[in-house]
Amino acid sequence: MEQLKVIKVGGKIVEENDTLNILLNDYAKVEGRKILVHGGGRSATRISAQLGIETQMIDGRRVTDAETLKVVTMVYAGLVNKTIVASLQSRGINAIGVCGADAGIILSNKRPATPIDYGYVGDVVKVDGDMLARLLEGGTYPVVAPITHDGKGNLLNTNADTIASEVAKGVAEKFDVTLIYCFEKPGVLMDENDDNSVIPLINREKFEELKASGVVSGGMLPKLQSAFKALEAGVKEVVITHASAIDKPQAGTHIVL
Amino acid sequence: MEQLKVIKVGGKIVEENDTLNILLNDYAKVEGRKILVHGGGRSATRISAQLGIETQMIDGRRVTDAETLKVVTMVYAGLVNKTIVASLQSRGINAIGVCGADAGIILSNKRPATPIDYGYVGDVVKVDGDMLARLLEGGTYPVVAPITHDGKGNLLNTNADTIASEVAKGVAEKFDVTLIYCFEKPGVLMDENDDNSVIPLINREKFEELKASGVVSGGMLPKLQSAFKALEAGVKEVVITHASAIDKPQAGTHIVL
Repeated sequence: MEQLKVIKVGGKIVEENDTLNILLNDYAKVEGRKILVHGGGRSATRISAQLGIETQMIDGRRVTDAETLKVVTMVYAGLVNKTIVASLQSRGINAIGVCGADAGIILSNKRPATPIDYGYVGDVVKVDGDMLARLLEGGTYPVVAPITHDGKGNLLNTNADTIASEVAKGVAEKFDVTLIYCFEKPGVLMDENDDNSVIPLINREKFEELKASGVVSGGMLPKLQSAFKALEAGVKEVVITHASAIDKPQAGTHIVL
Repeated sequence: MEQLKVIKVGGKIVEENDTLNILLNDYAKVEGRKILVHGGGRSATRISAQLGIETQMIDGRRVTDAETLKVVTMVYAGLVNKTIVASLQSRGINAIGVCGADAGIILSNKRPATPIDYGYVGDVVKVDGDMLARLLEGGTYPVVAPITHDGKGNLLNTNADTIASEVAKGVAEKFDVTLIYCFEKPGVLMDENDDNSVIPLINREKFEELKASGVVSGGMLPKLQSAFKALEAGVKEVVITHASAIDKPQAGTHIVL
């Protein structure tokens, strides 16, 4: 099977021109088929404030009322997505920007209002892997904004990490998929204060070991749990790496079953 | 050749829920392959005002400074485009929202700053008809927002009527294209105060006649001139009709060579 990389980049990196340009230079160098998934939360918060809309976060997740939904649709699927697409086009990458509603790529359900009412937030139900494969085989490189739809005409705000993982799973039957999460650290660290302590490989056994010894805890736990879920659903490899290393296949922490 | 309709709908209709829903119900009924081109100017003006950005128009065209470019990108390619796409998806139409940067569909040049500096406004250079055909043949229905790119990483605000006409010309080698402009009148009128005086057919000879007699003047003149340019470039037919008549092939004024 052909290889495919699904690369998730966080908000901060894509929202400042300097870091975005460096990232897209590296992204352009990544060989083979690829899908980019991006966020945009900081811009959404800033533009909400300018529009007099208060941002409410619960456990790091944005509460999305009707007005906030308009803002995130504008910012994620409009400003951030098209800025990335135009930049990639100038680098010779035939990018096509989509959100989950486009070509019906990602269907979601509005999250139940209990126990916490997050408003217009979607939980992914289904990814159309055939359609994504068709776009890829048509020579385009999808750039995915974290907005989905419910098939009933409603747009829904959806976590970008989840989108990346669901997209990776959705195309796993058709491609050998590597799912790459970029962030500000060079990988999963043995010592969180030492950037040179990257753990190069984590399998299920190693993960249990790291959990038991307390090396992996806090926010890294759900990240790794979700990585193993993606692997169980057919993704070949998950990589957690620094944003400056997306074109360096050996860098970061590689997670396999 | 297979038939294709390129339908341009104006700002007001797509910016109010009631009129948008009626329009999209009709659009869903239009048979065969189709491309929708939309505006969004009123929303852009409103959101600009909310963000404290002054809207400046010259001859009905928006002067697009750097901040205004961000707003129109958010509003046209984000809010308006994705609202339409999600609504069409709920009607069983596999819509895919794009702006000119996506898949490199529409390349433009920044308009020269003399005699009037419109800022980040693009004049269309090239439409990638092959890519549009590929999207159509892949079973999707493009919904096009009036933002283009210059291939150097810059987005540019571009007139939606022009986009519709350029898209129609760009696919005219591959399809029998009908270009449909919808607006608030039922067509080109013999008597501008009588909505029952629609001129059903205008060819070049008739056009010269209508010009000489003064029936066609003002804003309708450039519309018809641009219609004849599209016909000369291979578009089969141009229709000027009421927004409520897009699924009625016989309605409106039909313009042919």
